[in-house]
Order: sequence, then structure tokens, then C-alpha cells
Amino acid sequence: MDNRPIGVFDSGLGGLTAVRRLHEAMPSENIIYFGDTGRVPYGTRSPETIIRYARQDVSFLRTFELKAIVIACGTVSSVALDTLAAESDIPVIGVVWPACAQALRETRNHRVGVIGTSSTIRSGAYERMLLTARPELRVFTRACPLFVPMVENGRVQRGDVVIETLVREYLSELKGEGIDTLILGCTHYPLLRGVIASYMGDSVRLVDSGAAAADAARAMLIPAGRGRGRTRYFVSDDPASFRQLAGLFLNEQITHPAELIEISAYGA
Amino acid sequence: MDNRPIGVFDSGLGGLTAVRRLHEAMPSENIIYFGDTGRVPYGTRSPETIIRYARQDVSFLRTFELKAIVIACGTVSSVALDTLAAESDIPVIGVVWPACAQALRETRNHRVGVIGTSSTIRSGAYERMLLTARPELRVFTRACPLFVPMVENGRVQRGDVVIETLVREYLSELKGEGIDTLILGCTHYPLLRGVIASYMGDSVRLVDSGAAAADAARAMLIPAGRGRGRTRYFVSDDPASFRQLAGLFLNEQITHPAELIEISAYGA
Repeated sequence: MDNRPIGVFDSGLGGLTAVRRLHEAMPSENIIYFGDTGRVPYGTRSPETIIRYARQDVSFLRTFELKAIVIACGTVSSVALDTLAAESDIPVIGVVWPACAQALRETRNHRVGVIGTSSTIRSGAYERMLLTARPELRVFTRACPLFVPMVENGRVQRGDVVIETLVREYLSELKGEGIDTLILGCTHYPLLRGVIASYMGDSVRLVDSGAAAADAARAMLIPAGRGRGRTRYFVSDDPASFRQLAGLFLNEQITHPAELIEISAYGA
Repeated sequence: MDNRPIGVFDSGLGGLTAVRRLHEAMPSENIIYFGDTGRVPYGTRSPETIIRYARQDVSFLRTFELKAIVIACGTVSSVALDTLAAESDIPVIGVVWPACAQALRETRNHRVGVIGTSSTIRSGAYERMLLTARPELRVFTRACPLFVPMVENGRVQRGDVVIETLVREYLSELKGEGIDTLILGCTHYPLLRGVIASYMGDSVRLVDSGAAAADAARAMLIPAGRGRGRTRYFVSDDPASFRQLAGLFLNEQITHPAELIEISAYGA
């Protein structure tokens, strides 16, 4: 038994899709969540800035005695996982490999699509991982730069012309390539599952990268003892507005208020 | 003659619309521009965070010996101008009053619309200023939270279904109210002038708040001597991608590269 909490972070709210899966699959775990809501989004920033911000995020989480860190952010996992893991003496779990492993298990026709932020797609991280594991795979990628602002504005419903138009614009090429598996390479995207699934059709399986990372954590970490674990939420901007939107991602209300921290004061 | 430079800042690129007008109207002025590209956007953040970021922006600019500061950001002008001005021993010029003054000069039917970021509209700054100056005015406001991400992604063209749909959605009520003047209360919005003007029709005048602030600076400051002034650009994320997009806002290429700074190291 290992009752130390798991640290989870994201640029903002997206990582809560991983927290939700951790709650479901490992209800006894204590979780420390940090959402960098004062500097969201990460996916349009440069690799240098993403690494700097991610190091501060990890530094803050390491003020707690953790058993592992889950990078519940597609952008940080794609751009900074190697750096962060090399600097850490506890396991650091990103979303890229767990999502790729699930896609490799699920695809039948060996044609896999990957969508993510601009920085994620530019990094080539998913593509490289998939092709290293299975060189004969065909991988098709596409950056979807407006999905995060859409999700953060709650524009996720089918029937909304704006999101439906963007989904068609971003995904039509992948659809035309006949993929049977699509990795949602950003932890915000599961909130668009309905509209994406409706456009891509039943023949395409969607891989939720945040949930895949949570499953990887479950497979690898020594679990906590019995009893219901507690989650503490920290943010770098207004806790009240975090709480409002968090319900969308967690599909349940946060009972304890989130706590505000000054993230740029942490780390090097 | 006062050859000290004018400091100009914005959350990102929007403030360049003010720099452009300063260049045109006051070509001899030296300008120090800071765009907080590592933390853009401001318009969705809390007042506390906006004030904290803005204080750091001013602290950085004050490392130069300036004659004035232009807050070329609708959000900071709406939320933090009083605070920043009270703390400053040089003039601090925001966009709100200059834009309101222009709208008051231009309206014939005394029905004025204001659009801006969520934080700007929530602050009520434009509305309060307009009604204090002319209590019989009818003011109609609307937050347009997705305009900044659209502009930052270069989605500003007429014929783009996504931006046309958002313009219709955000502006239909204002249009229905029969306004004859619309304040573009965010310095990003002049890039949407074409699509907004086309939707609102010829009878509605658009007020560019960044240009209005530049005109206010011209009216109030002792000018620099003869000769062509120089502009130095500073950013908090990748200078190369700033340079790419800056051309859109300035309508000319930046010749000297922007310089990268660590903004959270400045100020209290």
C-alpha cells in the first residue's frame, strides 16, 4: 500500500478528464491537481515556454510528497516529458505512450489518426511513438488550434454551427484517409466526443488520452489503502470560475473549493 | 521636444493596432512595445490576475526612461487603469476613455454599442464612462469571448463560415437595437473590421479603441524631435512567431527582431 498522493497537472481544465478516470478506476487514491488557469492555453506556445511552465508546475506539485506525477496535458506530454522525467526521482506518466498503446490495440486496418494542439502536432511525438512501435502503421495527424478555446467556452454541443464547422474542417482529411482509430491527443477533446463521433461515424474508435494515462497509472503504481481518497485542487487564477467549469469535465461538482497559488514563484 | 520613448503594452498582438496608428500619426516617436505572448489572452482571466500581470508589464516597461505608457489592451484598460495610473508618476493612457470620447463625437442617434472580452464587458468600464459623460445615451454591450482566439489564429476573412457565424451570433442583438456607433473595445478587433462592417452595414460607424488611444497620446504628449523614431519589440514567448503575426496587425513587416524577456521576474 502506498498512500502518498498522485500529482496531476494540466494547462487548465483538460486534465480533469484524467482525474475523472482516476476517481472511477482508483477511488482510494489521494490526488493533488494543479490547473495552470492563469497561463492557459499551452498548445500555442513555444517549446521553451512550455518546458519552463511545466517545470514550475512540477516544482509546485513536488511540495507534496507524491508517489507519481501524471502529466494530464497532451502538449506538455508531447514537448516536455523526456525533460521532466529525466529530472524526476518519481515516475512521470504522460498521455502520449498510453494513448498510442491503446490505439495500437484497437486499430484493425492500421490507419490511425491523431489530433492535438499546434505544439503537440508540430512536435511529432505521437507519430514517432506509433511508428517506432509499429513501422507499417499509417499515421495521419492534424492540429486543431481552435478546439481548446471552444471547449473552454463551453461550445461543445452537437448542432452548434461553429463547432460543427470546425470539426468538419479539421477532420475531413482524416476521415477521407479511412482511419479506424482516432487519438484525441489533447485532454480537452473528450468533451467534444459527441460531435467528433457523430462526424467520424461508428467505424472510428476514439482514444481518450487522459483516460489512457489514468489507466497506465493504475497499471503501474502501488495502490493506496482502502477508503475514499481525497482530491485537492490548485489553480493559478480565480478558483470560483474553475469550479464552475470543472463540473463539465469531472461530470460531478467539486465539493472542496480550489486553492489559488502563484505558480511563477516555483522552480527555477 | 521630449525624446523619451512611449511605452506600449498589450496581452499579445492586439496593441500593435495602436502602434500602427502611433507610427502614422507621430512618426518621430520612439516606442518600446511589450506583448505578453507567454500569457495571452488576458480577457478570460480574473481581475486580480489581470492586475498582477499588468503591474509586471508596467514594471518591465519602466526599466526604460519613458515619457508615458499606453495601455493598448481593452481588458487591462477596463480592469486596471485606475490602479496603474495611481501607482505611476508618468501619464498612463488607456483605450477606454479615448474610444468613448470618439463614440460620443460620432453618434447621431445616441445609441452606442460596445463589444469586448468577457472581463472588459463584465467590468462595465465603457458603459460607465459613456453614461457618466452623457446620461441620456443608450448603451448596449456584448462580450465576444471567441474573437481573440479567432484573430490570433488568423481567422479574420469574410466568407469564413466560423467567423461569420460568430459575428452574427455576437452582434445580432446590437444590430437589432439600431445602434449607429460600435466601439471595438478590444485592440484585436480592428482585424475583424471587414467582417464586422459587412454584417453591421454602412450606417454603423466602428470605433477602433487602439487608434483612439494613439490619438489621445498625440493630443496630450510633448512630441519627439525630428527624424524617424525607432520601435523596439519585447515579448514573453517565441519572438519568431510574434514576428510572423505582427505583420498582420502593423500592415508592415518588423525589421528588427523582437526580444524575449521573462516577464514574471518583474514587479512585485
